[in-house]
Amino acid sequence: MQLVLLSGGSGKRLWPLSNNARSKQFLALLEKEDGGMESMVQRVVRQARAAQLTNDITLATNASQLDIITNQLGDTVSVVTEPERRDTFPAIALAASYLKFTKGCNDDEVVVIMPCDPYTEAGYFHTIAKMVQCVERNVADLVLMGITPTYPSVKYGYVVPAAQVSGDKFQSSGYLKVSRFTEKPSVEVAKALLKQHALWNGGVFAFRLDYMMSTVKKYIQSESFEDTRARYQEFPKISFDYEVAEKAESVAVVPFTGQWKDLGTWNTLTDELHHPIIGNAIMGTHCENTHVINELQHSIYVDGLKNVIVAACPDGILVCSKEHSEEIKKAVENLTPRLMYEERRWGTYRVLDDSTYEGGQHSLTKSITLNPGKNISYQIHHHRSEVWTFVEGKGIFVLNGVEQRVTAGDTVIIPAEHYHAIKALSKLTFIEVQSGNRLVEEDIEKFEWNWSE
Amino acid sequence: MQLVLLSGGSGKRLWPLSNNARSKQFLALLEKEDGGMESMVQRVVRQARAAQLTNDITLATNASQLDIITNQLGDTVSVVTEPERRDTFPAIALAASYLKFTKGCNDDEVVVIMPCDPYTEAGYFHTIAKMVQCVERNVADLVLMGITPTYPSVKYGYVVPAAQVSGDKFQSSGYLKVSRFTEKPSVEVAKALLKQHALWNGGVFAFRLDYMMSTVKKYIQSESFEDTRARYQEFPKISFDYEVAEKAESVAVVPFTGQWKDLGTWNTLTDELHHPIIGNAIMGTHCENTHVINELQHSIYVDGLKNVIVAACPDGILVCSKEHSEEIKKAVENLTPRLMYEERRWGTYRVLDDSTYEGGQHSLTKSITLNPGKNISYQIHHHRSEVWTFVEGKGIFVLNGVEQRVTAGDTVIIPAEHYHAIKALSKLTFIEVQSGNRLVEEDIEKFEWNWSE
Repeated sequence: MQLVLLSGGSGKRLWPLSNNARSKQFLALLEKEDGGMESMVQRVVRQARAAQLTNDITLATNASQLDIITNQLGDTVSVVTEPERRDTFPAIALAASYLKFTKGCNDDEVVVIMPCDPYTEAGYFHTIAKMVQCVERNVADLVLMGITPTYPSVKYGYVVPAAQVSGDKFQSSGYLKVSRFTEKPSVEVAKALLKQHALWNGGVFAFRLDYMMSTVKKYIQSESFEDTRARYQEFPKISFDYEVAEKAESVAVVPFTGQWKDLGTWNTLTDELHHPIIGNAIMGTHCENTHVINELQHSIYVDGLKNVIVAACPDGILVCSKEHSEEIKKAVENLTPRLMYEERRWGTYRVLDDSTYEGGQHSLTKSITLNPGKNISYQIHHHRSEVWTFVEGKGIFVLNGVEQRVTAGDTVIIPAEHYHAIKALSKLTFIEVQSGNRLVEEDIEKFEWNWSE
Repeated sequence: MQLVLLSGGSGKRLWPLSNNARSKQFLALLEKEDGGMESMVQRVVRQARAAQLTNDITLATNASQLDIITNQLGDTVSVVTEPERRDTFPAIALAASYLKFTKGCNDDEVVVIMPCDPYTEAGYFHTIAKMVQCVERNVADLVLMGITPTYPSVKYGYVVPAAQVSGDKFQSSGYLKVSRFTEKPSVEVAKALLKQHALWNGGVFAFRLDYMMSTVKKYIQSESFEDTRARYQEFPKISFDYEVAEKAESVAVVPFTGQWKDLGTWNTLTDELHHPIIGNAIMGTHCENTHVINELQHSIYVDGLKNVIVAACPDGILVCSKEHSEEIKKAVENLTPRLMYEERRWGTYRVLDDSTYEGGQHSLTKSITLNPGKNISYQIHHHRSEVWTFVEGKGIFVLNGVEQRVTAGDTVIIPAEHYHAIKALSKLTFIEVQSGNRLVEEDIEKFEWNWSE
């Protein structure tokens, strides 16, 4: 069985912590049993493994998330990146092509698609196991998870089960047949749906690989993943629900009744935090239902606040009543054009200072940390010089084709147009001072370097 | 006439903006008529000059404030620094000795002592002019300003006027004679004092120089300022009110009825801010009586807050209801041992990053700006190396006795035990990366350098 986690989103609803490179599912804000912290996607992968569902996990995502996924999940998962953002059908079609052509899965392999970030419990994964059985027993072509509604929500799609027919394969196997789907309804319609025992569509789907591939072939007939990916724009921009689920002839739904939440706003997220403070902060005695998340070095002191979220990180500082925290997305749309913190495949960086001076001179100062064994590619910049002062660890630095060992205390100067690369032999941190008149991430040209060790 | 401004205080009631080096009177938060910003002490000096009181202004302060006073007021004022903190009598005695011995003032020169940071209006300085006249006309040895009380405060000392005696010199000259002083009273006593037309003691005193010097001589008989300063600890730790005012035989008081405030807490300070936002911040539409002061580069977004102060600067971030903002002083006492921002005689610095790594290695990254023509002294450090990358302006850099021109884009490496200095030829900014195992301001040994230009 193959598990595919859909990882999309670039929302700013959890600004300043979430940005275009760090979507909400990558925020390490959830406490593990051992007291350590994990992100939503790390939690889901851990839960899937704990439920012994499968070891074959594939993340379907876009290119901008590749580095952070590698950083958070290492090489233990496969990653399929869309060449552009389209919709859920193309994303799942591409993942299916990857399983078929690159991973060489059999046609009758069961594939489960799920979001990468539901905040849920072990029962959710046991429900997935039941969905897999339903496919394996050929009860239906497509099996969905139905979340038992707790209120007549207008935000979710609904799955309406059919009346049970005595003796049909659904009834005899204990599964519910799906009668129809309803997209986000009005409150009145939602109330009526609840009376009909309708379930929320949780975006979890199980099917055999060849079932999906038959739909893929309607748009792209190919025998390779690379070719399919190259022709990605030939897939229509349509959701999996419209293109596959609503057209399927035989659809079953397996209900799930346990905890299931979208921690997509500060309001819902802070409900699940074990402690009111994450990071360097002090809370006075006059606070009520107030949370502070501080990823900055600066000390934070809060007092006299009620129902407030304070979130501080290199991208910015939010101080907002939880009540109004859902409105921030639009307000902060254009607030931070430059990413001030990024997790990359090789480690992380933080912008310490970004200043422009009289005469147009510009400087950008970063703290950059490489994980042991990782390297930053051999590259040149046309518009800036860089000065690196190593403050932790050991590494190999390359300048214009010559390797040298570097260690904490060393400084290297890299003028514009000079070829350079760095590899960490242990955890390696340096302070980088960029200066020039055009300091943008795009000013980079990459080359190959064969490391001597 | 000589005006002496007493500049004391190291409080953290305006944390994080105020710290041991930047007391509240130096915060540039008040808007001038031209839209620029000024600090409380800059405002008082500007007002005194606008009232054409005098050009002879002396700041009586402690050594830790010398740099910031020089930075904010330049060479237009004299500065007398106490060798240690004692009380207001020794501070005023030292200032009097400075006027007498160093500045060579005559014995009958009128001296006015006032706090450096009252938030007040032109009438305050006109009242001072009346006090000077009162001394000049020999109506009293000591003349005080009495602030007309607006409520029975228990925080202030009171000056109780004597009943007017028909035909005496006070009555005939239009001044009030002082009957007695009362220190911070109970509410009941304060109410009774108001009925007796008592005034608040605003800490403004006028006297002739020889009057003060006669008291100075009771403790230190000297003919030089340097000698008096060297023997500073021989002065008793006592306030001017106890040592001089309460013992004086002939005391007058001149009432002042206009605006007079101590902007010493976030609550009182934010009342006087013209705009709810200073610095880089966005306020949503659901805020009420909320102020944001942001000295960081990070964007701040606030919404849904009522009666809240948000203050962010390199020393920390405060988010507090105005109601509880007076309690922060104790809470933040030990929060920021290192100063993260300082105004020095040569310019300013900001700490960008302060990190300790595995193995005890430490790095400290600063942005340092020198004002044109200023220099940092010739010095060595024993425990750290420094790397300076110049990002703005031009200067002269000295390394082990050799001068060289530096300009934006240049980098210099200064190993431990290497002598170095820098002088700005124009506004000069560089990013400094310190590394070593003991990064403290105290690791410095200073020497003389004769600049070639």
